[in-house]
Amino acid sequence: MAQLLRVQNFGISSDGFGAGADQSMERPFGHADPGNLLSWAFATASWNYRSDAGGSRGLDDYFTRDYARNIGAEIMGRNKFGPQRGPWQDHEWQGWWGDEPPFHTPVFVMTHHTRPSFTLSDTTFHFVDADPATVLEQARDAAQGKDVRLGGGAATIREFLDADLVDTLHITVAPVKLGSGTRLWHSPDELLDRFHLDVVPSPSGVTHHLFWRK
Amino acid sequence: MAQLLRVQNFGISSDGFGAGADQSMERPFGHADPGNLLSWAFATASWNYRSDAGGSRGLDDYFTRDYARNIGAEIMGRNKFGPQRGPWQDHEWQGWWGDEPPFHTPVFVMTHHTRPSFTLSDTTFHFVDADPATVLEQARDAAQGKDVRLGGGAATIREFLDADLVDTLHITVAPVKLGSGTRLWHSPDELLDRFHLDVVPSPSGVTHHLFWRK
Repeated sequence: MAQLLRVQNFGISSDGFGAGADQSMERPFGHADPGNLLSWAFATASWNYRSDAGGSRGLDDYFTRDYARNIGAEIMGRNKFGPQRGPWQDHEWQGWWGDEPPFHTPVFVMTHHTRPSFTLSDTTFHFVDADPATVLEQARDAAQGKDVRLGGGAATIREFLDADLVDTLHITVAPVKLGSGTRLWHSPDELLDRFHLDVVPSPSGVTHHLFWRK
Repeated sequence: MAQLLRVQNFGISSDGFGAGADQSMERPFGHADPGNLLSWAFATASWNYRSDAGGSRGLDDYFTRDYARNIGAEIMGRNKFGPQRGPWQDHEWQGWWGDEPPFHTPVFVMTHHTRPSFTLSDTTFHFVDADPATVLEQARDAAQGKDVRLGGGAATIREFLDADLVDTLHITVAPVKLGSGTRLWHSPDELLDRFHLDVVPSPSGVTHHLFWRK
């Protein structure tokens, strides 16, 4: 069984941005309100951070509960780990993901400024300065036969698309415009030369875009 | 975590029938062509019986790969096991499911005519003469904390709905009429007093109906 590289539950605006401009410690999504991009997921029974027994079990829940299915590692860009740019000032801050990160696997953070690996609960963060193909090879080894999740942000997904390394993408398009920020696409049609596409409107208001290779 | 009772990937006609009339050894679905009800699933990458690496990974594949997720036992009606009616004439025939049944868990077959349990590969069939609540209790014990799949047919699903024991249902409605057979419903609206409903048309032509309890 092939080990797929999968984008899962990646939310963008209707004008194609995965995050707003001016990312900072206080605003991981820049000027964008993450609630606008991700509220469809917060409402589901299988949402990572749900602490009660409620939540919907309709269409959107299929996507939140597929998030971790058969995933053995994640690759993310540095901006998904934190807002710092350039050399690390210190190693004390350990990312936005809290003491129990929602990944539960090895995570490979792509950065030109490496730092020592560390573990929080059942997630270990590695920092790698390498091209997409090399990072994917490391993540596949760590995943021990399972698939690898490509966690974003948009610029990181673009890098792996440009290197033709992505097998499937699940992108949710929210009914909100951002105007600026980190762009995933101008139109999903840009990927149709290499991917099949199912476009699935959800009762929650987002439109799920499901791509798989031709 | 509660153990849910889930109907998964149950296919019916646009006029509400889960199987045609006149079920026989040669025709498990009676006068219905199972391809008409299930072709959406055959085309997906995660279809149980797929032997090659192909298949679609769009919307329909989310449903075929959810089929076994966190399932620890199945309950089925006698007609899903075989076409015999009344007392068993012999115990040699072991169901339509071949040497490697697609269940991979204990299966509880509801029948007034019990027979000894037997195992094929990693599936063990038990034959129980009891009401839905009692059978569900046995299946939950066997599932060891996982959910229980309610496998059908339509009459069996109706029995569990009448006893108010079903937590979620995924029903696919195919664009074909049968005119007669075993009926699941006249309209999905019959369930709206107790269930939420997402109606999701698929590019493959079927319409997924997803119910979860209010």
